[in-house]
Amino acid sequence: VNNSYKLVGKSVFNAPNLKIIMSVQFKDICDIRKPYKDETETFLEVHLESRDPIVLFGHWFEKARATPNIDEPNSMTLATVKSNGRPAARTVLMKGFGQDGFRFFTNYRGAKAQQIEQTPFAALVFYWPLLCRSVRVEGAVEKLDKLASDEYFNRRPRANQIAAHVSQNQSAPVSSRQALLDRQEKITNEFEGKEVTRPDFWGGYVVQPDLMEFWQGQGSRMSDRIVFTKKNETSGDFVQEGDNGWVYQRLEP
Amino acid sequence: VNNSYKLVGKSVFNAPNLKIIMSVQFKDICDIRKPYKDETETFLEVHLESRDPIVLFGHWFEKARATPNIDEPNSMTLATVKSNGRPAARTVLMKGFGQDGFRFFTNYRGAKAQQIEQTPFAALVFYWPLLCRSVRVEGAVEKLDKLASDEYFNRRPRANQIAAHVSQNQSAPVSSRQALLDRQEKITNEFEGKEVTRPDFWGGYVVQPDLMEFWQGQGSRMSDRIVFTKKNETSGDFVQEGDNGWVYQRLEP
Repeated sequence: VNNSYKLVGKSVFNAPNLKIIMSVQFKDICDIRKPYKDETETFLEVHLESRDPIVLFGHWFEKARATPNIDEPNSMTLATVKSNGRPAARTVLMKGFGQDGFRFFTNYRGAKAQQIEQTPFAALVFYWPLLCRSVRVEGAVEKLDKLASDEYFNRRPRANQIAAHVSQNQSAPVSSRQALLDRQEKITNEFEGKEVTRPDFWGGYVVQPDLMEFWQGQGSRMSDRIVFTKKNETSGDFVQEGDNGWVYQRLEP
Repeated sequence: VNNSYKLVGKSVFNAPNLKIIMSVQFKDICDIRKPYKDETETFLEVHLESRDPIVLFGHWFEKARATPNIDEPNSMTLATVKSNGRPAARTVLMKGFGQDGFRFFTNYRGAKAQQIEQTPFAALVFYWPLLCRSVRVEGAVEKLDKLASDEYFNRRPRANQIAAHVSQNQSAPVSSRQALLDRQEKITNEFEGKEVTRPDFWGGYVVQPDLMEFWQGQGSRMSDRIVFTKKNETSGDFVQEGDNGWVYQRLEP
């Protein structure tokens, strides 16, 4: 392992505090390198199961679900924009998808909800390394209606329903885990013998895609990328007609 | 499976094009639910291996590397902001980390590079579902210097070095995979018997963290979240002193 790397304008060996350097010497992991697909498994336009990217997503998602050792096929990164114009991101669980988009549920008072309120657009990334596949989504975000939020809330395990009430101001500082446990106990007692109703501050969103990219990692990093965009927003020599108002094209890897 | 969900303002059963609906009926996956940690494995402040988040990241990362079936422990989502102020995100491989930040390498002409050029801030998400752990990072992005980019480039497999030359305008449309293969063959021939030098348009970036959050998923969704921020930028009742210019606090899940 070579620790002589320099970062921009500053060598790790010239930093002012040697103690820091000793404890966090630059970790070089450049040689972690897994094989991707080889040329017998390229992802060509003729392999598209559908020219509607939502339907195509369904095929890829079902393949991920059916693949052993893909632990949470529905986990996705949700990227949003903060009030200072900088990006933020975290993992959430996708709870359904259809022609209108991708759904997830959360606390409407948390950081991501505040960001969506101000900039109602999101990017999603599904990544299934065991398949060497990824799907990227970009689109507008809308709140789901109360009925849909109720319906999903009512199907959650009771402990999760109670947890929604416990986290009253998601992302706000709290004194300790014990403070949360005390609140959990109090709320559990309050609901004893009763149905746990959805708190007003908890519910769903749907990300409505206007861009969907399908990526398959290939050997020698000659990876396949096919991106779908809305028909009226894209033109160019290499654009191909998709279904249901979409077009698609291949991108350089 | 209940397909009667409504999306905001529009039922999937009232949509204008029945053919679309038939082919992409709403996929309800709400009941995919994996167990997270239980209360014997809470992540408390006393469990922090370090109060320097970079050092703490090192501990978590090494645990991920040592865990069987974590396929690409160094894969991370990179979120950026587009010129229209909306978010974008994709998976990249982290190639090293240290006191100055997290490194990755890419094409300087691609979409993410253009976005970083305009808004030089990024968010990163590491997610290791088998550990029920995630680390989120936010910070400014800088280009690595040429020396560091050369050094990493020279260690890549030759085929990957050639691929960097082949993808001349990353994210630009291309006619077909065959067009890329033809270019790959031409460039391979040009370099025959010679060292493959790094193209000017390919190199590294470092994301310099000003926020790092450590998340551990817990049963009943009472998950643990401990966030580190720079000392001078954070105050409040629950802020605790960290090391090397950082403070930390627990957040509501």
